[in-house]
Amino acid sequence: MPIRNGAEYIQSLRGRSLRVFLFGELVEEPVDHPMIRPSINAVAETYDIAERDFEIASAQSSISGIRVNRFLHITENTMDLVNQNRMQRKLGQLTATCFQRCVGMDALNSLYSTTFEIDAKYKTNYHKRLIEFIKMVQEENLMIGGAMTDVKGDRSLSPSQQEDPDMFVHVVKRDSNGIYVSGAKAHQTGCINSHWIIVMPTMRLRQEDKEYAIVGAIPTNANGITYIYGRQSCDTRSMEGDLDAGNAKFSGQEAMIILDNVFIPNELIFMQGEVEFASMLVERFTCYHRRSYVCKTGLGDVLIGASAAIADYNGVANASHIKDKLVEMTHLNETIFSAGIASSYQAHKTASGNYQNDDMLANVCKHNVTRFPYEIARLAQDIAGGLMVTMPSEKDFRSPETGPILEKYLKGKKGISTENRVRILRLIENMTLGRNAVGYLTESMHGAGSPQAQRIQIARQMQLEYKKKLAKDIANVVEGESNELTQEQSEYFNRIFSAE
Amino acid sequence: MPIRNGAEYIQSLRGRSLRVFLFGELVEEPVDHPMIRPSINAVAETYDIAERDFEIASAQSSISGIRVNRFLHITENTMDLVNQNRMQRKLGQLTATCFQRCVGMDALNSLYSTTFEIDAKYKTNYHKRLIEFIKMVQEENLMIGGAMTDVKGDRSLSPSQQEDPDMFVHVVKRDSNGIYVSGAKAHQTGCINSHWIIVMPTMRLRQEDKEYAIVGAIPTNANGITYIYGRQSCDTRSMEGDLDAGNAKFSGQEAMIILDNVFIPNELIFMQGEVEFASMLVERFTCYHRRSYVCKTGLGDVLIGASAAIADYNGVANASHIKDKLVEMTHLNETIFSAGIASSYQAHKTASGNYQNDDMLANVCKHNVTRFPYEIARLAQDIAGGLMVTMPSEKDFRSPETGPILEKYLKGKKGISTENRVRILRLIENMTLGRNAVGYLTESMHGAGSPQAQRIQIARQMQLEYKKKLAKDIANVVEGESNELTQEQSEYFNRIFSAE
Amino acid sequence: MPIRNGAEYIQSLRGRSLRVFLFGELVEEPVDHPMIRPSINAVAETYDIAERDFEIASAQSSISGIRVNRFLHITENTMDLVNQNRMQRKLGQLTATCFQRCVGMDALNSLYSTTFEIDAKYKTNYHKRLIEFIKMVQEENLMIGGAMTDVKGDRSLSPSQQEDPDMFVHVVKRDSNGIYVSGAKAHQTGCINSHWIIVMPTMRLRQEDKEYAIVGAIPTNANGITYIYGRQSCDTRSMEGDLDAGNAKFSGQEAMIILDNVFIPNELIFMQGEVEFASMLVERFTCYHRRSYVCKTGLGDVLIGASAAIADYNGVANASHIKDKLVEMTHLNETIFSAGIASSYQAHKTASGNYQNDDMLANVCKHNVTRFPYEIARLAQDIAGGLMVTMPSEKDFRSPETGPILEKYLKGKKGISTENRVRILRLIENMTLGRNAVGYLTESMHGAGSPQAQRIQIARQMQLEYKKKLAKDIANVVEGESNELTQEQSEYFNRIFSAE
Amino acid sequence: MPIRNGAEYIQSLRGRSLRVFLFGELVEEPVDHPMIRPSINAVAETYDIAERDFEIASAQSSISGIRVNRFLHITENTMDLVNQNRMQRKLGQLTATCFQRCVGMDALNSLYSTTFEIDAKYKTNYHKRLIEFIKMVQEENLMIGGAMTDVKGDRSLSPSQQEDPDMFVHVVKRDSNGIYVSGAKAHQTGCINSHWIIVMPTMRLRQEDKEYAIVGAIPTNANGITYIYGRQSCDTRSMEGDLDAGNAKFSGQEAMIILDNVFIPNELIFMQGEVEFASMLVERFTCYHRRSYVCKTGLGDVLIGASAAIADYNGVANASHIKDKLVEMTHLNETIFSAGIASSYQAHKTASGNYQNDDMLANVCKHNVTRFPYEIARLAQDIAGGLMVTMPSEKDFRSPETGPILEKYLKGKKGISTENRVRILRLIENMTLGRNAVGYLTESMHGAGSPQAQRIQIARQMQLEYKKKLAKDIANVVEGESNELTQEQSEYFNRIFSAE
Repeated sequence: MPIRNGAEYIQSLRGRSLRVFLFGELVEEPVDHPMIRPSINAVAETYDIAERDFEIASAQSSISGIRVNRFLHITENTMDLVNQNRMQRKLGQLTATCFQRCVGMDALNSLYSTTFEIDAKYKTNYHKRLIEFIKMVQEENLMIGGAMTDVKGDRSLSPSQQEDPDMFVHVVKRDSNGIYVSGAKAHQTGCINSHWIIVMPTMRLRQEDKEYAIVGAIPTNANGITYIYGRQSCDTRSMEGDLDAGNAKFSGQEAMIILDNVFIPNELIFMQGEVEFASMLVERFTCYHRRSYVCKTGLGDVLIGASAAIADYNGVANASHIKDKLVEMTHLNETIFSAGIASSYQAHKTASGNYQNDDMLANVCKHNVTRFPYEIARLAQDIAGGLMVTMPSEKDFRSPETGPILEKYLKGKKGISTENRVRILRLIENMTLGRNAVGYLTESMHGAGSPQAQRIQIARQMQLEYKKKLAKDIANVVEGESNELTQEQSEYFNRIFSAE
Repeated sequence: MPIRNGAEYIQSLRGRSLRVFLFGELVEEPVDHPMIRPSINAVAETYDIAERDFEIASAQSSISGIRVNRFLHITENTMDLVNQNRMQRKLGQLTATCFQRCVGMDALNSLYSTTFEIDAKYKTNYHKRLIEFIKMVQEENLMIGGAMTDVKGDRSLSPSQQEDPDMFVHVVKRDSNGIYVSGAKAHQTGCINSHWIIVMPTMRLRQEDKEYAIVGAIPTNANGITYIYGRQSCDTRSMEGDLDAGNAKFSGQEAMIILDNVFIPNELIFMQGEVEFASMLVERFTCYHRRSYVCKTGLGDVLIGASAAIADYNGVANASHIKDKLVEMTHLNETIFSAGIASSYQAHKTASGNYQNDDMLANVCKHNVTRFPYEIARLAQDIAGGLMVTMPSEKDFRSPETGPILEKYLKGKKGISTENRVRILRLIENMTLGRNAVGYLTESMHGAGSPQAQRIQIARQMQLEYKKKLAKDIANVVEGESNELTQEQSEYFNRIFSAE
Repeated sequence: MPIRNGAEYIQSLRGRSLRVFLFGELVEEPVDHPMIRPSINAVAETYDIAERDFEIASAQSSISGIRVNRFLHITENTMDLVNQNRMQRKLGQLTATCFQRCVGMDALNSLYSTTFEIDAKYKTNYHKRLIEFIKMVQEENLMIGGAMTDVKGDRSLSPSQQEDPDMFVHVVKRDSNGIYVSGAKAHQTGCINSHWIIVMPTMRLRQEDKEYAIVGAIPTNANGITYIYGRQSCDTRSMEGDLDAGNAKFSGQEAMIILDNVFIPNELIFMQGEVEFASMLVERFTCYHRRSYVCKTGLGDVLIGASAAIADYNGVANASHIKDKLVEMTHLNETIFSAGIASSYQAHKTASGNYQNDDMLANVCKHNVTRFPYEIARLAQDIAGGLMVTMPSEKDFRSPETGPILEKYLKGKKGISTENRVRILRLIENMTLGRNAVGYLTESMHGAGSPQAQRIQIARQMQLEYKKKLAKDIANVVEGESNELTQEQSEYFNRIFSAE
Repeated sequence: MPIRNGAEYIQSLRGRSLRVFLFGELVEEPVDHPMIRPSINAVAETYDIAERDFEIASAQSSISGIRVNRFLHITENTMDLVNQNRMQRKLGQLTATCFQRCVGMDALNSLYSTTFEIDAKYKTNYHKRLIEFIKMVQEENLMIGGAMTDVKGDRSLSPSQQEDPDMFVHVVKRDSNGIYVSGAKAHQTGCINSHWIIVMPTMRLRQEDKEYAIVGAIPTNANGITYIYGRQSCDTRSMEGDLDAGNAKFSGQEAMIILDNVFIPNELIFMQGEVEFASMLVERFTCYHRRSYVCKTGLGDVLIGASAAIADYNGVANASHIKDKLVEMTHLNETIFSAGIASSYQAHKTASGNYQNDDMLANVCKHNVTRFPYEIARLAQDIAGGLMVTMPSEKDFRSPETGPILEKYLKGKKGISTENRVRILRLIENMTLGRNAVGYLTESMHGAGSPQAQRIQIARQMQLEYKKKLAKDIANVVEGESNELTQEQSEYFNRIFSAE
């Protein structure tokens, strides 16, 4: 029976005997740990939204023949991509954090088209296996994590050149039923909150890296997996009470996954040794995923709202410079959003039949995400005022000795509750310095690839030869025969200029 | 018989006896004036492209039943809007200047829906008249100019409060056949190159401004019209030769139009006194038109291409900082583009049946246009090097005394023609300081509304009440009953979250 | 006997029976509280540096006739101001946080000239009293806090208009020996670590605000004072161990001070009711203090160094984009510094004989401080990589179960200790999200006045009339007699163009 | 008899039989050419200011024993450098263009210290020769140009590797009286307006480039010199009348200098073959010269004034967004200024006894100059409105037919002369697109080295080893003995922390 809502999802996570370490100790039941629970709540929202916002957060799947959570859906048309963005923004608005389920969505979709093309070349049957797997997870409505980023060791060396072979996940043993893999994946979003984890290579591979060209699905509680929980700014406030947390209900989650001889049965292997397809998989995944960062515009909406609210509370909502800053924040936020949905709208159909968004615009979207949330956060701090970082703790507000003093002295405009004022300030702190600043800022910087990765990808697609020709035509430059067009790597302009 | 191509279009402009002043004198035949001709060439491209790029630059019209130039097409679906953007970018790439025909396109489309709504309220028949007019111009394939910006006089006073009533175009006389209007419109794009000009009010009007609430179509050579040509940076280089012009073939055009008792027959009047619809018309027009500024990404493509070409010629194409600047230019250019097409894709159907793009994203697009071309131009100048502004004139290059010296000393990398190097540098000068800098920079700043106009429009649509509620929900803020939602002016989020 | 070094300073703070609340409870001995101690360590550095860097951090005082800590010195020439900046940068480099002693230095210097001018007008003897006070603190080498920012209540109302008169500190009682004051001061830097606190008005006052125009010195442990400690991002990590703190030794300190009928004897009152001098005091104080923010360039140096170090550890120090980011960070950091010292160098002598730095450039300095540290922090996060926010806790590194795993998997380039890599990442986290991000970012935004306060002050000094005249002369604009020069508020250009 | 003022200077330029080409033809008398004259007027201001602003624009010279124009003065103390900046800003304010005399000032000062050090090593007598030359030009009050930038040919090759040896100026012949040099110098500021030109190498040289390591003084009208005038945006407007020029009186000047067997007598040779000193000379010169770009803040003052004036004329001076833009322009302008004077104030004495400004801050200053004037110009265009680029020509304003129409329709706020409004708009055009945009923008970009040159120089001085040590100390990083400090190239922090 499928998981029907957030509550059932949370229930489904119990009793899995995961080996999760936090503060150097095994966590008995992650679901009940106050520092972990907010991240689980965020995923739970991805279940509830599919009920509430049926049209944008679920879809009719041709694979399972049923209506499925959009996070498990293989895109069948352009609007499926656009609706992913809509759902992402909405969930960003509802949780103000990373809800962790996009990685699985983007992994399934990029694997869908990549396995199809591997099979076409090698007569393998990865695509069929994957479809079976997708069918199952759709029917059971599971949470899928995607594990891509290896720890990498010395970055100047390829996987097979590393002194320690475990710096990248690789096959350590094989038998007729499947393979055994070892290695570690760093900063894995929502992995502990997943039912399944799909392991994938993290970069372009070469022939000698065959044992590293592995994709497979693993149950989160498989033998040999250890999770070490990543700590976040202000994470322990979740164990103090609700006020100082700023956003007590929701948070993101990143952990390190250590794989020690973990078994993957044949029917759950979706790539094995086809090294030249590693880069295709990575590129398609990052293409989807960089555009998935429009979720941050939902967080931006919350932060803009918090800034507007504190301006109200401080009695300065009508100051022209305050209004102007709110406009600027909105402008930047919508600039991010527009590149994301433009990328989705400019999608094309892959050989496998699913839809892939535009790569140039996905990179442009993500690249703006590495810049604008920082500026939005800076403006939010500007509007908030210094009290945000000098307020006493919740315990001081609750104390009979200091509480009344603070109530007297920290009130703002008449009629405003001091506590509400504090709550909004703590939310701004949460998103600009605290726990969810990790998601809103640092993850915006590095998730789905650091800024330089986008610049490289933009460079690959910027079609300079085409543009130089435009300029030379306008400038009436006549060059000799050496003027043959260098091959461009991108079809960006083809997609723009082929009217539908 | 319709105009079939650019050549026929140019021919159609001859012999119209327009009253055009330039440098204080009447121009005999604008088509043959070397300073005016490049602007005509740019419009001619809008004719030729409809032949060459049939699918993006023409459309099947339900009004005339024929395939028409897209600039004359009333949008019948979302893709009609997206294809406008594609056509605009392409024409920007081909001309590297303003091709002047968007104003008419956007005016016809905004009038289409506005006249429908006026008629619905007042039982007038403007919409039918407009359809007849559109049918005619589609069949004849004419160039339409739109005249909106009044000279305004004292900006703190409304039209009817001005000391001199002519500061805004208004009715000065009426008879049974029509009306007579006087006034002046400043910086009118492509007006002299148009066959018809549609006069429209420039801003929100009040009841006492009834005589200013006028929309009508006027032949460009009607009695009583005078044009005074606007001058542009480096405009006279067009009369010197082709090298120093940078872009000898194409330029934009802005002129002042003075209307002195100009007659408009009843059947060409599309608004007369319905003051409350002036703002609807202006808002819909600017909504279309601010997104039409994606044309500037086509110019951006040329400038990026020119920068890449000069880097080649200078032998520095592989320097990491050069490549990085080209990436940055591309990133900014595509950021503009994405907001434009996102606005088009997020279109909705009006009551009249045509399609209107998203207003928030149109403003976001235009607002980026007021910033990024300046930065792209700055980076182009960085890559170009100082020679761009210290090179001698074409005459020095052609002179037998100085030519050989310059040929010797201004050559760059081996095998590069000095003249080609100069040509590219002159093109960069043209777009960043010269004639087309007017279009690429200053018009990007003020066309379709200055930056502050976009900020006001973004402010009206930013739905702060909705966002404050998001923040308060996350922060667990409970407020009293005073918490009723203030009315928002925008349906932006409704459009985002209503999945199609 | 004076305090001779940091150790003696720390000793001097013990046993003062301060009433300090933290987490809702009275702190027994602040010196020994692990969350407070780092802020005391930072002040201790201001003592030690005067020994070590004798020339920049101490000065020969004409008041006491001895060599004194520069933080207690009244400026006697321009170089005294420049050397303040040098000392501030050095201490920023040594502590990577706010060392809290500038407020007192800037308060004493602004009071020095202001009391002189009050006395000149009213024949009071504030200046003489102040000199006595300064002599004493110089001889004993004490730490002085300045308490300026009132809690303010409803910001649209003046002090005497507030419903609750305590929203601004004011006189509640008077007797022949002195006055009693009540009220509260928000976010007071280093107050608990001070020996004396100087209370000052926070803004321009009007005649009816006479009881609010109070300046006086109060021992930190005076009767009636309560301190409530402000919490900072990640503050409790100081109680966990040293690794996760990032900067275990140093932090800033802000607290709220509540004054309840606190007595100030006549000889320690330096203003009482001379309302028109409140704005002079505030302006001179902020003029000094906005320039004192060059301390942040010392923090910037540490963050640049940390970024360079982590790039080494990650093996990417030679990547061109990494080097370019380090250059950009340096460029921004030095831009801040140059405005600060330029302000000091452009000093002038006040009527009282001490030196005041240039106000325009002080505001320019601080305004850049509200922007550039955020960008430097963003670039530091870019270079650091995502591990910074996903690393496990110190306890995981120390645990026998997870420690070896982390040691294996988180090593970077060969030969680099994993712990050192973690230490540098935690330092970057500390300065961009954690405890000292409060000082490096949010305090940079709001300390010494929020951005809009600087814009107002820049506006007051930008001498538009002078500049308009320059433009009109160049443009050959001749205007009628109405051309008389409007009075400018600033003497900025006079100071520039009066060569010394 | 020395030249005493601007008028005498202009007279001194007549009748020199220079070989100057413009538009392919020999110019008969440059002084009388309407396109050249404005650049001469700008230099003339450097003479007049020395009379009017005696203290900042002249100095008592120890070399000649008389009071000399500051442009000819060898710096004898720190304030001499600061006063250079003051003079530069003032002249920028008075001319709104490049006044061309800084190159000579900076060349003489860098040669002064460099020749001293060559002599010390090689027992040559360049320094004494130079002093004689300086004495002479001080006594006669001459205009000195400095010719540094060679045309360079293929930038990947060194001077002696070029296919054509003339790509860099070099010795072609020698006799007992002196040397003969050939080659060309590109974009030479004010060369035609100079009395003497000092030829210098343009970059670091190697042993095999001995014949290129030449410094010498040449009279502007020496045999064998040809000048080809560089053209600027809108340059021919100077030949049309005064209104459209925007700044009819002043402009900059750049030309190409071709040297064909030009003789330099022994007593005017200041370097000959000492290749290792070429880089010292270039670095000291650019160190002075990058800071000399504070002149652009004077231009910025004019542009800010013009923007404020047009806001007045348009009746929008009180709009909050207008005021805010003027504040931003001012803030950016003063940020540039502060880095410049900070560099001067942080000067040190060279071995020769003259003073050299701080190199890091000079580069920071110039690097801001490559950015902020573009943003100031963008904001000026924003405030100006679109009319700036669509106004008709002066001839239209003067024409009896169109003049009255324009007078009627282009008036702004009541009481404002249309002509004055046009004048201010044309000035803004002049500085942002037109003739002086070359100086305010493109020259700001490339003069004294392009942006990347500053980044390289900042990189050389950023003392990363020192900063890494700071970070490691704070983070408590202990490294092994390999921790020895790498040698830093800079003494920047030494200069900061050595209190005077």
